[in-house]
Amino acid sequence: MEDLVLRHDSGHVARLTLNDPTRFNVLSLEMIDALAEAFRQIESDEHIRAVILSAHGKAFSVGHDLRQMQASRSDEDAGRAAFERLFSRCAGMMQMIPALPQPVIAEVQGIATAAGCQLVAACDLAVAAETARFGVNGVDIGLFCSTPMVALTRAVPAKAAFELLVTGDFIDAERAQQLGLISRVVPAAGLSDEAMRLAQKIATKLPAAVRMGKRAFHDQLRLGLSDAYDSASGTICENLMLPDTNEGISAFLEKRKPAWASD
Amino acid sequence: MEDLVLRHDSGHVARLTLNDPTRFNVLSLEMIDALAEAFRQIESDEHIRAVILSAHGKAFSVGHDLRQMQASRSDEDAGRAAFERLFSRCAGMMQMIPALPQPVIAEVQGIATAAGCQLVAACDLAVAAETARFGVNGVDIGLFCSTPMVALTRAVPAKAAFELLVTGDFIDAERAQQLGLISRVVPAAGLSDEAMRLAQKIATKLPAAVRMGKRAFHDQLRLGLSDAYDSASGTICENLMLPDTNEGISAFLEKRKPAWASD
Amino acid sequence: MEDLVLRHDSGHVARLTLNDPTRFNVLSLEMIDALAEAFRQIESDEHIRAVILSAHGKAFSVGHDLRQMQASRSDEDAGRAAFERLFSRCAGMMQMIPALPQPVIAEVQGIATAAGCQLVAACDLAVAAETARFGVNGVDIGLFCSTPMVALTRAVPAKAAFELLVTGDFIDAERAQQLGLISRVVPAAGLSDEAMRLAQKIATKLPAAVRMGKRAFHDQLRLGLSDAYDSASGTICENLMLPDTNEGISAFLEKRKPAWASD
Repeated sequence: MEDLVLRHDSGHVARLTLNDPTRFNVLSLEMIDALAEAFRQIESDEHIRAVILSAHGKAFSVGHDLRQMQASRSDEDAGRAAFERLFSRCAGMMQMIPALPQPVIAEVQGIATAAGCQLVAACDLAVAAETARFGVNGVDIGLFCSTPMVALTRAVPAKAAFELLVTGDFIDAERAQQLGLISRVVPAAGLSDEAMRLAQKIATKLPAAVRMGKRAFHDQLRLGLSDAYDSASGTICENLMLPDTNEGISAFLEKRKPAWASD
Repeated sequence: MEDLVLRHDSGHVARLTLNDPTRFNVLSLEMIDALAEAFRQIESDEHIRAVILSAHGKAFSVGHDLRQMQASRSDEDAGRAAFERLFSRCAGMMQMIPALPQPVIAEVQGIATAAGCQLVAACDLAVAAETARFGVNGVDIGLFCSTPMVALTRAVPAKAAFELLVTGDFIDAERAQQLGLISRVVPAAGLSDEAMRLAQKIATKLPAAVRMGKRAFHDQLRLGLSDAYDSASGTICENLMLPDTNEGISAFLEKRKPAWASD
Repeated sequence: MEDLVLRHDSGHVARLTLNDPTRFNVLSLEMIDALAEAFRQIESDEHIRAVILSAHGKAFSVGHDLRQMQASRSDEDAGRAAFERLFSRCAGMMQMIPALPQPVIAEVQGIATAAGCQLVAACDLAVAAETARFGVNGVDIGLFCSTPMVALTRAVPAKAAFELLVTGDFIDAERAQQLGLISRVVPAAGLSDEAMRLAQKIATKLPAAVRMGKRAFHDQLRLGLSDAYDSASGTICENLMLPDTNEGISAFLEKRKPAWASD
């Protein structure tokens, strides 16, 4: 399974690469499990401060493995249990991304469709090459992208999301950026460098602060205003009690570089 | 009442047209009831796969019928019961749009103000002519657009929505598109064709998948991430068990057109 | 304390000005209390219909008073109680803005960072000079901007908000407008006039309608569709029962200016 997702660490940055290029990095059950396993390892790896999720080949990912899915239709229950298992595992893997302590940056070089587009939307940040294209086009084969929709509707405005889902239309990277799906668009030749610059910038921050902040971000997102402030105020007070944060603030006031224990 | 909303079917597309042009398509109680009745008929019409909501005359709709509302002030309770009935029926009609199995496309040729703008915001998709203008300008006559606000704040960013509501300012179609209220802007001469192209594209999709997907879209929109995935995973597994979806996926893998029972 | 926040009324508009320019208008406990006190006075001042929140000096506000915060680390509990008190009061002050009957317009002439950026995001409307810059850059000193995040994530798309929070990057006024943080960008020389024009336009509206509408806006924002319509329908019916609204609608139908008791 380790072949399906490659991991290459560079300093505090882990680069994961979807590595099934001849099959356009389909999210087979094996690919989903390999991604989940990679996330699990990174979750407990205190050395890693940022993650890049990239892909080999022309496509970023074209979504679920339709051949594998169709094969399970010969099961006694016509595939129902297999489908339920697949989508349960896939949703679990997708939710590992916001739950991961480290920010995850999608690096999108080619097309990202259906669950492949969901994977981009599920990441905390996303940079794309001008050559990237995005679609949630399952509707074209009679399978509405209901699960990709969960991540998509949390990243882009409602009407734009519905239009993409119901038309199956593709959008380019510039439009994806306008909609909020993508943070930055760069020429294809500079994509990996841009993703790495962003990851390394994040890696210079105090890891405990980033970890607390990322958790707090998701905790407060859907709360009412008062509950959200209670949650976030709790987090910022915890953050302030970190010795490294004390040092960080002191260093700033004294116009010097902080000497962080975690560095 | 049938004169107030015209219906013209073209293939699998139903075009509804607000037909009170000399009164700028005000949403009188009769117009609201006529729209609700049209939606009710379409809801159970399995032949229809997409709906266009257009308007005759210069205006799309200027909102509630102020003359009719003022007339009820001579009631014993100074109009209160009449107002409550009006807004209850109007909110009910507006909520029929997301509840309808078929996607609804607003085709906006002129001004859409107050509840007229709400009607656009309530539609699943919206295309507008360059000549369209949008406002929630009830505040100018002392009646804050509180009910249009419900649909508006679910389509555009919070600060922009509040500015429109509190200033009564109008925006053009290009700005409405930037804000997410409108999907596409076209020259006035091409508006009907553009709406029809979009509707017909939707009509080529598997109706059961679109129906499931539209319901799932609204079901998951406000849920927490985990609940949203549970909901959407349930939907996509149901979708997969449709024989037509089985055929759709097989056809795609075999590079042929699907032979859908529903075609 | 009154020196820290100046108030100057002009007709129905109250202009508040952060007045600690040599310290870049830090949100010290005293500044937070002075702002809260100013809001409290305006809350019960029926003459005031709109509020401008501006700042003296080069910066709008650079956020919390780090020197004051660090001083409390010598407390017996290493500052914990002081931090909790500070963030409780700050969150309370920030929540006074949406709770205020009058719309509040941020007038941003310079940099607004961390809790200074939060203050902009918390306002109902915001106009900025081309010279304004925005950042939630606490992460750079090891203190993730968890509380500014609450206001920020309610104003801008999720991925863009997270990127700002985790990178500490600054954005200019044009980008802030694209993201929805700012309503309008103008040349620096015209900023005060633009904010005043906007405030005076709001001040011409029926105050009771604006007050009801602003409350209704926040009441319905996070509700499900049906509950939101119930809430907003209740508000618009109350609004209709105001004698001034009756007069406003009649005047509109008779093509004359309304004679409002509140004018």
